[in-house]
Amino acid sequence: MRYGMVGGGPGAFIGAVHRRAASLDGLAELVAGAFSSDAARSRAQGAELGLDPRRVYASFEEMAAREAELPEGERIDFVAIVTPNHMHYANARAFVERGIHVVCDKPLTTTLEDAEALCRLVAERDVVFALTHPYAAYPLVKQARALVASGALGVVRKVIVEYSQGWLATAIEETGNRQADWRTDPARAGAGAIGDIGTHAEHLARYVTGLEIERLYADVSTFVPGRRIDDDANMLVHYRGGAKGILVCSQISVGEENRLALRVYGTDASLEWHQQTPNELLVRRADGPTERFTPGHAFLVPEARRGTRMPPGHPEGLLEAFANIYANVARVIMARRAGVAPDPLDLDFPTVQDGAAGVHFVHAALASGRTHAWVDAAYTPPTAGTGATR
Amino acid sequence: MRYGMVGGGPGAFIGAVHRRAASLDGLAELVAGAFSSDAARSRAQGAELGLDPRRVYASFEEMAAREAELPEGERIDFVAIVTPNHMHYANARAFVERGIHVVCDKPLTTTLEDAEALCRLVAERDVVFALTHPYAAYPLVKQARALVASGALGVVRKVIVEYSQGWLATAIEETGNRQADWRTDPARAGAGAIGDIGTHAEHLARYVTGLEIERLYADVSTFVPGRRIDDDANMLVHYRGGAKGILVCSQISVGEENRLALRVYGTDASLEWHQQTPNELLVRRADGPTERFTPGHAFLVPEARRGTRMPPGHPEGLLEAFANIYANVARVIMARRAGVAPDPLDLDFPTVQDGAAGVHFVHAALASGRTHAWVDAAYTPPTAGTGATR
Amino acid sequence: MRYGMVGGGPGAFIGAVHRRAASLDGLAELVAGAFSSDAARSRAQGAELGLDPRRVYASFEEMAAREAELPEGERIDFVAIVTPNHMHYANARAFVERGIHVVCDKPLTTTLEDAEALCRLVAERDVVFALTHPYAAYPLVKQARALVASGALGVVRKVIVEYSQGWLATAIEETGNRQADWRTDPARAGAGAIGDIGTHAEHLARYVTGLEIERLYADVSTFVPGRRIDDDANMLVHYRGGAKGILVCSQISVGEENRLALRVYGTDASLEWHQQTPNELLVRRADGPTERFTPGHAFLVPEARRGTRMPPGHPEGLLEAFANIYANVARVIMARRAGVAPDPLDLDFPTVQDGAAGVHFVHAALASGRTHAWVDAAYTPPTAGTGATR
Amino acid sequence: MRYGMVGGGPGAFIGAVHRRAASLDGLAELVAGAFSSDAARSRAQGAELGLDPRRVYASFEEMAAREAELPEGERIDFVAIVTPNHMHYANARAFVERGIHVVCDKPLTTTLEDAEALCRLVAERDVVFALTHPYAAYPLVKQARALVASGALGVVRKVIVEYSQGWLATAIEETGNRQADWRTDPARAGAGAIGDIGTHAEHLARYVTGLEIERLYADVSTFVPGRRIDDDANMLVHYRGGAKGILVCSQISVGEENRLALRVYGTDASLEWHQQTPNELLVRRADGPTERFTPGHAFLVPEARRGTRMPPGHPEGLLEAFANIYANVARVIMARRAGVAPDPLDLDFPTVQDGAAGVHFVHAALASGRTHAWVDAAYTPPTAGTGATR
Repeated sequence: MRYGMVGGGPGAFIGAVHRRAASLDGLAELVAGAFSSDAARSRAQGAELGLDPRRVYASFEEMAAREAELPEGERIDFVAIVTPNHMHYANARAFVERGIHVVCDKPLTTTLEDAEALCRLVAERDVVFALTHPYAAYPLVKQARALVASGALGVVRKVIVEYSQGWLATAIEETGNRQADWRTDPARAGAGAIGDIGTHAEHLARYVTGLEIERLYADVSTFVPGRRIDDDANMLVHYRGGAKGILVCSQISVGEENRLALRVYGTDASLEWHQQTPNELLVRRADGPTERFTPGHAFLVPEARRGTRMPPGHPEGLLEAFANIYANVARVIMARRAGVAPDPLDLDFPTVQDGAAGVHFVHAALASGRTHAWVDAAYTPPTAGTGATR
Repeated sequence: MRYGMVGGGPGAFIGAVHRRAASLDGLAELVAGAFSSDAARSRAQGAELGLDPRRVYASFEEMAAREAELPEGERIDFVAIVTPNHMHYANARAFVERGIHVVCDKPLTTTLEDAEALCRLVAERDVVFALTHPYAAYPLVKQARALVASGALGVVRKVIVEYSQGWLATAIEETGNRQADWRTDPARAGAGAIGDIGTHAEHLARYVTGLEIERLYADVSTFVPGRRIDDDANMLVHYRGGAKGILVCSQISVGEENRLALRVYGTDASLEWHQQTPNELLVRRADGPTERFTPGHAFLVPEARRGTRMPPGHPEGLLEAFANIYANVARVIMARRAGVAPDPLDLDFPTVQDGAAGVHFVHAALASGRTHAWVDAAYTPPTAGTGATR
Repeated sequence: MRYGMVGGGPGAFIGAVHRRAASLDGLAELVAGAFSSDAARSRAQGAELGLDPRRVYASFEEMAAREAELPEGERIDFVAIVTPNHMHYANARAFVERGIHVVCDKPLTTTLEDAEALCRLVAERDVVFALTHPYAAYPLVKQARALVASGALGVVRKVIVEYSQGWLATAIEETGNRQADWRTDPARAGAGAIGDIGTHAEHLARYVTGLEIERLYADVSTFVPGRRIDDDANMLVHYRGGAKGILVCSQISVGEENRLALRVYGTDASLEWHQQTPNELLVRRADGPTERFTPGHAFLVPEARRGTRMPPGHPEGLLEAFANIYANVARVIMARRAGVAPDPLDLDFPTVQDGAAGVHFVHAALASGRTHAWVDAAYTPPTAGTGATR
Repeated sequence: MRYGMVGGGPGAFIGAVHRRAASLDGLAELVAGAFSSDAARSRAQGAELGLDPRRVYASFEEMAAREAELPEGERIDFVAIVTPNHMHYANARAFVERGIHVVCDKPLTTTLEDAEALCRLVAERDVVFALTHPYAAYPLVKQARALVASGALGVVRKVIVEYSQGWLATAIEETGNRQADWRTDPARAGAGAIGDIGTHAEHLARYVTGLEIERLYADVSTFVPGRRIDDDANMLVHYRGGAKGILVCSQISVGEENRLALRVYGTDASLEWHQQTPNELLVRRADGPTERFTPGHAFLVPEARRGTRMPPGHPEGLLEAFANIYANVARVIMARRAGVAPDPLDLDFPTVQDGAAGVHFVHAALASGRTHAWVDAAYTPPTAGTGATR
């Protein structure tokens, strides 16, 4: 399978992650790209990657137009979009409109209008659309989700989810750091910590518990002087059905690297998972020892088993989790090509509707932060449940 | 030194903890008690403990009156109060009025009026008064406090403190469980999770950071059907000076045993401590490896060193932390007797004003929970800073 | 119950540990002592502890003789021996001969002849004799033992036990350190790392698995220049019945505090326990998640449950484990006094025969180290199995 | 860069690992293969991987001969050898003789004669030859090596290294398990646990400490009835220069997944690393807190930094470590092509001499196990130090 990339030019950290992930399982090969809005930089990156120069484009519009004209079997099957947030909508639209499948970095868009427009467009053009929330693609997160769904925890009462980093604890955006530069720019990022990592936390909690946020109260801060965007938020959350909880996201928590952690407390049992030690899932009960799950075992659920490439005890990391999304997308596209129904296990990736829900969450949190009030966060994205989008 | 006990009759878990702690360092001997409001039960407990029957009393009033009449050197030097919360005020008053020093279980009282009256009375009678927040008496908590005070963390920006338990996840108060019975009774406990454990969390954060809560927003819940008291709360907290954070307390977090944990994030470094692994303190920085402290080392601060009885690697637990409070109290009383100034290190225990602050916190949290609004939680207890109370 | 102490004078670390442990559960009160071979130091320690000066003796011989003359009910019920190793035999004999029960620090003696003589004497005089291997008295070690005994691990194949410390990595015995001084003196200690901590490791493995060492090969070293005693040993071990393993003891492992750890691998499952995190026991299987046990739960075996004083999640440490031995001894003595059979759970403490087995192990290891050959380590202490010694 | 593969046919676990690793950084593309000695299986695998059928060969001999005839720029630059151990020698020789660079799975060969012949041949033909000990390619292992080399630990006194697995605790080779089948066959594997994983442990210890084993005593066992090869070994090890230690390898340690762990104790400090949590390195000192290193930080040594692809806190695993070897090899080959000296950091991979040393270790351990005696394990491979082999 062939794919192209929009964004991911020289120095862009996340582009290389996507490229490694996309090809990890040998299912997709990079053949085209518009790696930068600067044509020379795009060409340089394409050359560095050994691409045919004819398929290295000066703009994503050109890429979408030209690739769509290529014959099937030659043109890209899907595009990976790894640009700054404010570009996602235009990028994605250009390809979806032409019937090209999309893997898009999160958050989906910076405005809810764009997100919903994309939902409708994806349904209309019936393309495969995946959003990269890779943390939910770790095998043990899938095991956690299955445990909740099976009722092993009883009824969920409390959810504590957190994503704390420290890398923005000082104004490094003023020091020339490229990552910090656009991520702290309201125009390009849309939101700060809430959009960059809060949305991962929200998705993770939703993915594992199946619960939607009904209302939330966000205490949103900007700790670093001069910064124009949120860098820390603490939220009270009420889920549909009565569960309550806490959602914390922070980029000023000095010394934290990438502390994404989830705890779910049910009436019968609870679970805990930490992204920095992703190969361990704890399940606690009142009446027996704590259980510690690790990946790769035959006794895990199928969706957890298939996300592991090596025998137990051979650590896999975030790249492999990322690759789990790409592999599922590739297999779904292959099934479509073959005219057969996709394996249901392959449909296990975040969708455009998940993306719209994430954008809605970001906006709800920012609104609560501004108004110092609870906000209604219940949300049903357009075309939800139609199944059209995978 | 001689001490007496009020409460702690047959089957009362916490009485035995206090007795072991009080005598652990050989500084205090139990010689008197009013162990139960039921005279026969009090006598039975006294006999079990091998006390002189003449000093086992049918009521705390009788005990206070009779002990006060005994000659110095024979009468108790201090009393340990380990009754249910609603009795603390009357218990403590009876002894303070007679000039007998007090060690009292937390929370100090169930009403703020009582707490403040006690503050004034303690100052007036100039007695030593300690409140048992034992978690703050672990050696590494003292190290943590010293690190913050030294400026090693920079300016504190964020505090995450949590105390989660699961033992009240079902209505065990209806099954005859004595501990659960009074702790879920609004009349005897005053508050539920917030008073029972939230107050430990609040004290721990305050002790380590030196920061006072300025305002808070509490999302207070009762999850267990039929329960008449709070069993879970999630709070947004603003500290004086600009730090923000989260305070979680819960008794319905199934599978959690006694998960009290604190994180403090400053501008330069952060720290993390967990009560269930109390002999480890982590300090994280952006520009170097994480440091893991353990107790017993010469390079720790003096107040941390003196709370350890064995060489490094010989685990000490909660009983030993409890004993650190009793030992300090005993040494302060000895200094008074000797007419000398106490060693400043001995003054390191929670006071009656800390108790009043804790009660104020509980009431603020409950008020916020009732009104669904931020409440002003700033508070200066009466007689604070007079130094009269140690 | 009354007890006396031999050793434990000013500055002796282990004496204070024993005193705290002996009285922790309120079952025994210190009333007599010969705390030092220096009469003035003994008196000073007795005064510090508030003892009646008439019962503070200038020598252990005097103490044994005089206490034995006191009427029952006044004289000590047992003696705690906490002197350097080379004194244990004479100390213990003096009391056993007079029918006074003994709790003795390990190793039992420095020669096997003495150890065996004590076995016979204890049996002849029918006294209670306990050796303080406190690590085996942690609740989860008892759970581990019960798991092995129940067959939950299948047949044991492999045992890895280690006790590593770093405090003797330099020649601190030359700096005036009292602990190091006698522990590195062949005349007073008998053996170095092997006797001081190797014997704990050997006992722990034997206690948990029920297996006896059949033969061993010890690679014994003295790393610190000028030291006259072993400070490190690595051993190959063959157990009776076919299990094999490793036993490591070291006092030159810089940075290790008190790393005593045990792993037992059976045909069906395995377990792992670490002394520095004693409130966690891991049980691993091939076909399910790892189980993590913590103390205080109703689902643990009775012998594990009774060694815990607080609800789950309230850490207990080494002092409490030590106290478990003292409490058992006190209850066995009480049963004898009452003329009833002891509770079998109370008989769960290391005996004089365990001590002889430990001494045999030390000598076997030293012999192997000297001869660079496998040595027969099978050993049955005199009077083993007679049951006479508890 | 183009590479080919020998072995790694359908169902072979390790072939897929190598393929993912080789292409992870986009430096090498698989273009040829002799995936099985069964021509049809080889073709099937080639088709599955999308290779040009003309470059999928029926035998490695054919592949070597035919590829060598292709023009440079078309033929493979290197070959990855992932066959069972007994084939490595013939496989490697065929390519080395034709001047094709090699990446070979460990152990290098099953006989020392073959290993040494390869050393000489590699030197003679001046090819790049890398052996895949991937555990030594984790970033923090490189940090550990740099710490030792810098003298931060002082003089190394003790090394404890262990590699324990449980997957061969039962006779699964009799159940049709392909991995177990050849790994327990003396003819194809050469050695059991010692060759399969003991050699990883030996290499890891050597790589980190720079120490060579001088002599060893191995207690070698076969625990599973009917098995014809070693499945467990415990070794006493003496290193050149005076350090001593333990080396454990086991495949019958039920419940262990892939427990490879290393500890190094020096006169000044010690370090500890565990493969199952590879992103943590502990450094302990007597006089300060333990330091915990994680990857990705600017304060790490260059060789550690370059082995990490993502910012701190984004876990990388074994595949990424494997890829570090491939990336280094690819860059060294590129430098050769360019006629420039390789970056010294790129030369950091295990060589053919490391492989010969590993084979020597395996044979020494087996000899000791057979003779129940210490064996001389000192060894200098042919052509060592000539630098010819990278």
